[in-house]
Amino acid sequence: MAGSVLVRQARLPGRPAAEDVLVLDGRIAEPEATAPADIAVVDAEGLLLLPGFVDAHCHVDKTLWSGPWVPHAAGPRLVDRIANERARRTELGLPSATHAAALLAHMATLGTTRVRTHTDVDPATGLAGIEAVAKAAAAVAGLVDVEQVAFPQDGVIRRPGTLELLEEALAAGATTLGGIDPAGVDQDPVRQLDALFDLAARHGAGIDMHLHDTGTLGAWEMDLVAERTVGHGLQGKVTLSHADALGTVPDSERHRLLDVLAEAGINVVTAAVYNVPVPSVVELRDRGVTLACGSDGIRDLWGPYGNGDMLERAMHVAYRNGVRRDEDIALALDAATYGAARVLGLSSYGLEPGSVADLVLVPARTVAEAVVARPPRAVVVKNGDVIARDGRLV
Amino acid sequence: MAGSVLVRQARLPGRPAAEDVLVLDGRIAEPEATAPADIAVVDAEGLLLLPGFVDAHCHVDKTLWSGPWVPHAAGPRLVDRIANERARRTELGLPSATHAAALLAHMATLGTTRVRTHTDVDPATGLAGIEAVAKAAAAVAGLVDVEQVAFPQDGVIRRPGTLELLEEALAAGATTLGGIDPAGVDQDPVRQLDALFDLAARHGAGIDMHLHDTGTLGAWEMDLVAERTVGHGLQGKVTLSHADALGTVPDSERHRLLDVLAEAGINVVTAAVYNVPVPSVVELRDRGVTLACGSDGIRDLWGPYGNGDMLERAMHVAYRNGVRRDEDIALALDAATYGAARVLGLSSYGLEPGSVADLVLVPARTVAEAVVARPPRAVVVKNGDVIARDGRLV
Repeated sequence: MAGSVLVRQARLPGRPAAEDVLVLDGRIAEPEATAPADIAVVDAEGLLLLPGFVDAHCHVDKTLWSGPWVPHAAGPRLVDRIANERARRTELGLPSATHAAALLAHMATLGTTRVRTHTDVDPATGLAGIEAVAKAAAAVAGLVDVEQVAFPQDGVIRRPGTLELLEEALAAGATTLGGIDPAGVDQDPVRQLDALFDLAARHGAGIDMHLHDTGTLGAWEMDLVAERTVGHGLQGKVTLSHADALGTVPDSERHRLLDVLAEAGINVVTAAVYNVPVPSVVELRDRGVTLACGSDGIRDLWGPYGNGDMLERAMHVAYRNGVRRDEDIALALDAATYGAARVLGLSSYGLEPGSVADLVLVPARTVAEAVVARPPRAVVVKNGDVIARDGRLV
Repeated sequence: MAGSVLVRQARLPGRPAAEDVLVLDGRIAEPEATAPADIAVVDAEGLLLLPGFVDAHCHVDKTLWSGPWVPHAAGPRLVDRIANERARRTELGLPSATHAAALLAHMATLGTTRVRTHTDVDPATGLAGIEAVAKAAAAVAGLVDVEQVAFPQDGVIRRPGTLELLEEALAAGATTLGGIDPAGVDQDPVRQLDALFDLAARHGAGIDMHLHDTGTLGAWEMDLVAERTVGHGLQGKVTLSHADALGTVPDSERHRLLDVLAEAGINVVTAAVYNVPVPSVVELRDRGVTLACGSDGIRDLWGPYGNGDMLERAMHVAYRNGVRRDEDIALALDAATYGAARVLGLSSYGLEPGSVADLVLVPARTVAEAVVARPPRAVVVKNGDVIARDGRLV
C-alpha cells in the first residue's frame, strides 16, 4: 500500500511522550483515522521524528559529486570564481545530470525531501543546466522534490541574451527567477532589478536573488528590492539569498533593514558559508523575517566543501550564531525545515494531520541534540514511503 | 607481536604511489628493515595514511559525554559561563573520570592519538579534576596519550589559593601551566603573568594560556607575554590558546603581533569556535608562527557542540579561513597534526622512519578531501597496534 505507513512510538518535538503516527495516502492522518491491517510499520522506539529537511539554496547543476577530485584553482574574488567556472565547466562535463542525480539521491538518504536549486542560465550554456537538472530530478522522483531557480550567475544586463533565456527557462520548468548582485556583479542595479521584477510579474514567478554585496551598497540594494517587491505585489514571493549586507552594517541600520524586509514580506536564506557573517536566528524571528537555510555549492568549482546534510548546515547556522540554548539551536533547524518550506511556498508541510508525509527519524533526545550531533538518519519517509534507512536508499 | 604491523599499499601525502609501511616495536621502521614472517598485516589498498591526530586544546574534565542531555542555561558572557559551571558541576558529578574516559575512547576511534587537555584547578575543586583526568587517562592507556594543563579557569589573582594549587597540580602530574585572560577575567594582568612565569620557570614547565581578550587589550597582553617568554628563556614552550586579539585588531597591528610571537617562539592554538575570528593558516605559516588546533569544550556546561573529531575541527579551521585550494586546506590539517605536535613538544612525530607509529587510514584521494569530507576512519594505529576499525575500538 504505497504512501501509507504506521510509525510506532516516535517522539515529536515538544510532545511529552512517544506516540504512533499514522500516514495514509502520503499524508499524516487525522487522529480519528485507523490503520489498515496490512499497513507497513516502522518501529521508531523513541527516535525523534522531524519533518523532512528542506534545502532552500543549492546548486546541483554545478556539482562534481560522485566524480573525480578536482583541486580548486580559481582566484580569490567572486568574479574570479565566476570566470574560472565559465572556463572549466565544459571540460569537466558540467552541467551533469549524472552528478546532480547522485548528489540529490545522497541528500535524500540524509533526510532532505525538498530542494530549491539555483541553475545557471547564460548565453554560453543556454538551458543545458535547466535540462540536466530536470533529468536528474526525474531520476530521483519519489526521493526528493526539486524546484529550479533560473539563475543568471554571470549577470543579466552585462550579458545580453540572458534575460530572454531566463524567460525561456520559466517556460522550460524553472518556477523562480534568480538574480545576482545587481551592483557588484552586474554593474547596473536599477536596470537588472527592473528587468527581473517585470519578468516575474508577467509570469507570476517568485524571485530568489543572490545578494553578496556588503555594507551600504548591499543595504541600498535591499531598499531597491523592497520597493519593487511591494510595487509589484510580490510580498512573500521574494527571497534574498546570503544577504551579506545584514552582517556588515551598523546595528541600527541592520535593524532598519530587517524591518523593511519584514514589511515587504521578503525572506532571507543563509548557508552560513566560510567566514561570512550569519544572520541572527533570534533577531530575525523577533523581527518577523523568515529565515531559511541551504547548502549553497557542494563539491564544485566554487570550492570542495559541503555534503548536503541539512542537520550539519543547521549546526553551522547555530554555531556561527553562538547560540547554546536548546530553544535557540532549534531555531537553526527551523531554518532548514519550516522556514525553508515557507521560502519554497510549500503548503501542507510539517507534522500536523494533513501534512505531506515527508519524515525523518533520528536517534536524538532533543532537537538541539539532533543539530549538534547530526546522528545517522535511521529512517527517511517521502510521501509516506520509506525511502532510506541508516544512510542508504531502500 | 605487539607494536608491529605491516601496512600494505597505503598512500602517503605527497608521495606518487602507494607503498608498504613497516612498523616495528611501535615505530616506523627504516627502509632497509624487513618484516618478520608472523607480523600483523593491514591491507590499506590505497587508503590515505595520515599521522595520528593531535588535539592540542580540549577540556575533558568538563565533558558530559556519554551522560544525559543537559540543556544549556548560562548567561551570555564569558564570566556568566564560568559562574554557571561553578554552580552546577557538582550536581552533575563533574569532574567525572567516567565521562572523560568515554570521550577519550571516542576520540581514539576518530584517529586522535594525543591530547592536551586543560583541567580546572581552583580552590573549590582543588585537584579533583587533575585526579579524574589522570584516572581517565589510565583507563585509555594504549589508545590515546593525555597531557594535562593545570588550568585556572576562574582566575589566579582574584581567587587566592589558586597559585598554590597550580604548583601542587604540577607535582600531581600536570606538565603545563594554564592561564586565562589576565586582564578580562583576572583583572590584574601583570601580577597574573609574573606569578605564572615565575612558577613555570621554577618547575621547567611550559605555559598554555587562554587569551580571549580582544582588540588593543588582548594585543597589549600579547606583548606582556612575549616579554616574559624571552625574559625567562621559555621560547618554544609558551602557547596562546584562542588568541582572539589577532582577529580583532587592524591588519598592520596583527602583522606586528605575529612577528612578536614568531620572534619569541610563541605558538597559537585555535579551535575555530562559534563566530570568533580564526587565524589565517597561510599568514601564520608565512610569518613563522606555529598554529595548532583543538576541540575546546565538547558537550559540556559551556555548550553542547563538539564531537572530538579532529578532521571536522580542521574543516572548521579551513572553512572559516575561506581557503579552497588543496595546499591551503592541507595547512588546516597540519594544525591538527604537525603543528599540534610541536605545541605538545612531541619528538618523533610523523610518518618518517623512526617516528612513533600513531597512524590513521582514511578513504580519501587527497589530504584536502580528508578534511572536507571527514570520511570514516578505516584503521587507527596507536604505538604500532591497531586499536580501532571503522569507528569502533578493536
